[in-house]
Amino acid sequence: MRYEEFTIEGRNAVIESFRSGKTIDKVFVLDGCQDGPVRTIVREAKKAGSLIQFVSKERLDQMSETGKHQGVIAYAAAYEYATVEDILENARSKGEAPFVFLLDEIEDPHNLGAIIRTANLAGAHGVIIPNRRAVGLTATVLKTSAGALNYTPVAKVTNLNKTIEELKKEGMWFVCADMGGTTMYDLNLTGAIGLVIGNEGNGVSRLVRENCDMIASIPMKGDIDSLNASVAAGVLAYEIVRQRLNASK
Amino acid sequence: MRYEEFTIEGRNAVIESFRSGKTIDKVFVLDGCQDGPVRTIVREAKKAGSLIQFVSKERLDQMSETGKHQGVIAYAAAYEYATVEDILENARSKGEAPFVFLLDEIEDPHNLGAIIRTANLAGAHGVIIPNRRAVGLTATVLKTSAGALNYTPVAKVTNLNKTIEELKKEGMWFVCADMGGTTMYDLNLTGAIGLVIGNEGNGVSRLVRENCDMIASIPMKGDIDSLNASVAAGVLAYEIVRQRLNASK
Repeated sequence: MRYEEFTIEGRNAVIESFRSGKTIDKVFVLDGCQDGPVRTIVREAKKAGSLIQFVSKERLDQMSETGKHQGVIAYAAAYEYATVEDILENARSKGEAPFVFLLDEIEDPHNLGAIIRTANLAGAHGVIIPNRRAVGLTATVLKTSAGALNYTPVAKVTNLNKTIEELKKEGMWFVCADMGGTTMYDLNLTGAIGLVIGNEGNGVSRLVRENCDMIASIPMKGDIDSLNASVAAGVLAYEIVRQRLNASK
Repeated sequence: MRYEEFTIEGRNAVIESFRSGKTIDKVFVLDGCQDGPVRTIVREAKKAGSLIQFVSKERLDQMSETGKHQGVIAYAAAYEYATVEDILENARSKGEAPFVFLLDEIEDPHNLGAIIRTANLAGAHGVIIPNRRAVGLTATVLKTSAGALNYTPVAKVTNLNKTIEELKKEGMWFVCADMGGTTMYDLNLTGAIGLVIGNEGNGVSRLVRENCDMIASIPMKGDIDSLNASVAAGVLAYEIVRQRLNASK
């Protein structure tokens, strides 16, 4: 398991964790405790969407690892990110041409989770996300990934374009989903490929789009603009799967 | 627009609407008002996830249509469901073989919205959902459908199996997504088709599965069990789109 839970004990430590933006899944608070710091913790927990459970002192004493819980114990999530090299190694170890998802500023944790789930089932070797302006690996992502986060390596990079440049040198091709491209069925999506999925509202950013070798369009017959980002990722990923299966026949 | 908003005014009317399960998007409450019924409304609104806005008496008076708002005005959502016949007529009017989504107990409104969005863009003529044990058309569904709900007719039926039987008499074929079926690429998915998507956790129910002419499997290479329901719907829908495009070449 790359994803693990750990406990944070004591009022200041828990408050600090909330303020630093750590993912706190659950907070156990001493029942009846109403002083300032505890009220702050309950408020921060509500704001962060963490579960709050009021428990007895005996329960907290049992759970405590340090013996110094001060009436508050939090469960936090920790994920150890992979590196891009780990992802390439994953492909090499399976004797397959690399198939990697690159997410250009996905903001919704449900979408990120669903996309990691799709990456796992489509047989992709990993997912690359940018450091900034994107959602990270929170408990919601773990949950909506249906556990895929424990199997599919996720790497965080500072500059998506630089990563694309480097991976091109390794022989990879890049395709992004965008309007005005070539219908996906008419592209050759076999071989070492990076699938770039854009932001929910704005799509793929201009520089990333220019950096891609191919722009794939999903045929759209309807009245609205675009598919949900995780659905679009799934549809394109499975066109890659179909072409790969055909190529290996 | 099939989807419209209407206002509900007065304390009892608003409380009643919450209790009857109506979708209330937003509640305007007289600022400073703290009596029992108003507190009940605020509590119900929080429970239902409705937006609450505290406003001045002047504002409420302006908004009021009846002049008797009693300090509370709610915005509710109303959707006029289509009939199965409307969906078939939609196909006929376009001169196309019917392509219909049938959702067997989808529970998550985000999934329902994303699936209606996919149905619209894949060129399906409508979506059929069961009356019971499924999420209805709430404001969240409208939002996640990205407006597709205004274009793609959604019909509610009492018995999904009976509807399938009736549509079979109209010459439609039914395919459901499930494990242990035939790989979707090896099925003939052209012609008048109903695509059945199962519940997020339990998949397609046994009777519905037995009623389907084909069981389609999405190839899965990964470590986990299944795709997100809306992603699976998208992947299968676009295999149908691909085969339809090929058939018309």
